Amino acid sequence: MRLAVIGGVAAGLSAAARARRLDAELEIVVFEKGGTISYGACGLPYLVEGRVRRPEDLIVYTPEYFRRERNIEIRTQTEVTGILHPRRELSLAGGERVRYDRLVIATGARPVPIEPPAPNVFALQTFDDGIRLRKFLESRKPRSAAVIGAGYIGLEAAEALRTHGMQVEVFEGSAHVLGREDAHLTEWVRRHLERFGIPLLVNRTVRSLEDLSHELIVTAIGFKPNVELAIDAGIELGRTGAIRVTDRMETNLAGVFAAGDCAETRHLLTDSPAHIPLGTTANKMGRVAGANAAGVRERFPGVCGTAIVRVCGTGIGITGLSSEQARREGFQPASARITAKDKPGYFRGRPTTIELIADRGTRRIVGANIIGEEGVAGRVNVVATAITAGLRIDDFEALDLAYAPPFAPVWDPLLICAQQLSKLL
Amino acid sequence: MRLAVIGGVAAGLSAAARARRLDAELEIVVFEKGGTISYGACGLPYLVEGRVRRPEDLIVYTPEYFRRERNIEIRTQTEVTGILHPRRELSLAGGERVRYDRLVIATGARPVPIEPPAPNVFALQTFDDGIRLRKFLESRKPRSAAVIGAGYIGLEAAEALRTHGMQVEVFEGSAHVLGREDAHLTEWVRRHLERFGIPLLVNRTVRSLEDLSHELIVTAIGFKPNVELAIDAGIELGRTGAIRVTDRMETNLAGVFAAGDCAETRHLLTDSPAHIPLGTTANKMGRVAGANAAGVRERFPGVCGTAIVRVCGTGIGITGLSSEQARREGFQPASARITAKDKPGYFRGRPTTIELIADRGTRRIVGANIIGEEGVAGRVNVVATAITAGLRIDDFEALDLAYAPPFAPVWDPLLICAQQLSKLL
Repeated sequence: MRLAVIGGVAAGLSAAARARRLDAELEIVVFEKGGTISYGACGLPYLVEGRVRRPEDLIVYTPEYFRRERNIEIRTQTEVTGILHPRRELSLAGGERVRYDRLVIATGARPVPIEPPAPNVFALQTFDDGIRLRKFLESRKPRSAAVIGAGYIGLEAAEALRTHGMQVEVFEGSAHVLGREDAHLTEWVRRHLERFGIPLLVNRTVRSLEDLSHELIVTAIGFKPNVELAIDAGIELGRTGAIRVTDRMETNLAGVFAAGDCAETRHLLTDSPAHIPLGTTANKMGRVAGANAAGVRERFPGVCGTAIVRVCGTGIGITGLSSEQARREGFQPASARITAKDKPGYFRGRPTTIELIADRGTRRIVGANIIGEEGVAGRVNVVATAITAGLRIDDFEALDLAYAPPFAPVWDPLLICAQQLSKLL
Repeated sequence: MRLAVIGGVAAGLSAAARARRLDAELEIVVFEKGGTISYGACGLPYLVEGRVRRPEDLIVYTPEYFRRERNIEIRTQTEVTGILHPRRELSLAGGERVRYDRLVIATGARPVPIEPPAPNVFALQTFDDGIRLRKFLESRKPRSAAVIGAGYIGLEAAEALRTHGMQVEVFEGSAHVLGREDAHLTEWVRRHLERFGIPLLVNRTVRSLEDLSHELIVTAIGFKPNVELAIDAGIELGRTGAIRVTDRMETNLAGVFAAGDCAETRHLLTDSPAHIPLGTTANKMGRVAGANAAGVRERFPGVCGTAIVRVCGTGIGITGLSSEQARREGFQPASARITAKDKPGYFRGRPTTIELIADRGTRRIVGANIIGEEGVAGRVNVVATAITAGLRIDDFEALDLAYAPPFAPVWDPLLICAQQLSKLL
């Protein structure tokens, strides 16, 4: 019995490792088009910044590790060019054919390109992207940079480049940052970046890079799932353009699974398919795909849209839906926003801003934005847990949250915000 | 219509302030036996340590503030000596009688004493305790200290005294620290304190302070609810010895409410009354008591036993039940314990230890212990939210928690632990 996995980064390797843990006998082979596997792509902005010293520091496991410790064969620099499912065969560049019994497709996504490509234009997705940009910085010492796209990677890249002393501008085509339809959040981020000398220009679509005179350009306007192999094999896509999968990560072809940035997941609040390419979700999907490929039934319930980014010293966390998004999805959102200290003054408490959103009909929590210097991940995770569990505002505002002066004020900002929200419902 | 409140610290003032917000006409008077109201008692160890410079820095609001801004009368140095409910009257020390329509009892709790009292023996509960101990430190410069009791206050006090360079020993009468039946946690704390030069001696009951030769003694072996007034008025206690209340904080006497350390609350997991005197719970109970006293029906669902303490640089958070406690309460606990980095290495990730406990029968999360330098409050709060919502391990292990390198690893330690636990269920 052979499991083939296409893609050797987050989802693919999670799938392979999980399948091995559940089945010691399975033959497992992973095909990776690039030269490097198992790298922390989310660390690339910190490679640019310099906090990550060497590109190799982002590599978690080597192919040798997988071979030796996990009995998983990894073939790097090996592109799969076709899936011949009726024959259970993959064709590789160069003509080789490889049989499989089960298949996990983890082909990822690629940055949406902006034309024309040029030596001073960079995406920040692959290991090689990071190396190339880092070399450019060292050899050319650019003094000005344009970042196109104000998503997570764009904002992280902007800060990283600013750290090098460059003049940095961020151009965002939509009206919003972080893919979050939220005017207040966008304005907050704009003002915050401004204080650090980074102009953020929203509603500013860059159609051609030739219009920009910056010495360095980083493009980060989004990702397109790599689904060409899947389409050719007769695998169905969903409305998002990513591969449609069941909650067991199985495609419409029996025994063929898909996971990570090439596949859809389910949004727990809207109960609809969503394409939210994030490393943490990719790993979870991969793990479930690996289990099912090894014959163990497991399901991945979905995501609630949690994400966090650090921008110029401040954490910005989101989960669930913004008010605008909630309204569009058929909820009747009510929202409260407060700013409160995250700790007592004698523990240098600093302001944290929280917006909580609940649905008037069900009184359930449906979203939050949290901004602050500390405690943002923890607080956004509490809301994500509440959303996942369908907690109502009435129970949320009485949550038994941890209190001691080094950690939080006696009324946690989350609870203060919940009390305000409760009054509106 | 007059609302009288007995006690002017956490629960009493929360009740008064809430009642005022809901009813602008109500006459509200708060009686406080001591000279100071609205002080952050949880900050007292940091007053001892020196981080809080002056005792006054712990005072949040003054009586003048309440009078001027909230139209709430505060009578300090005023002891209520009797509740004559049939006549709706309070009798005060000195003989004065004060009529009420609604009453909130927030008389708090007092430290369990150890005999004999002496000038070098201190509790750490009231504002005056803090002032007295601080003066003792400054004038006598003691070189050795015994802390009796390894609960939150005892451990915080031990660290604070050690910061002054004293030789500090901690004596704990039970087999466990933090009131948590948990041998592993206790051993961890013992070794941690040892590294900072603080011996922790468990199963060591101090029967008389005369047996100790330390220059300074801090007693922190627990609290006894102040219920004498209530008993005399015919108010029923629960099995815990604290005042029995409904989920609206009402006692067996109509119109008489009790909140804070003098009253029982409900444990969400055992669905039984519990007496867990903590500032955060006192404030919540007070708020609900104030609402109901003002005629607005509200309920306080209860607590799940969340608490956190920082000891020598490390956060220790607990919620729900330990394995031992869960077994005794009729659950069939399974537990997993892991140690994992709380962030990637290039963000100076440090080990955090997590124990998660779930019930085999229902697969629900019933408890956690979390130890680490950062992120402990956030992670324990996620588990508290999951417990409150009755989340099962299957959904817990797929939680969509926030990930970015400055905040967490791609697999949050909570999820790694949940995966281990899931295998055991």
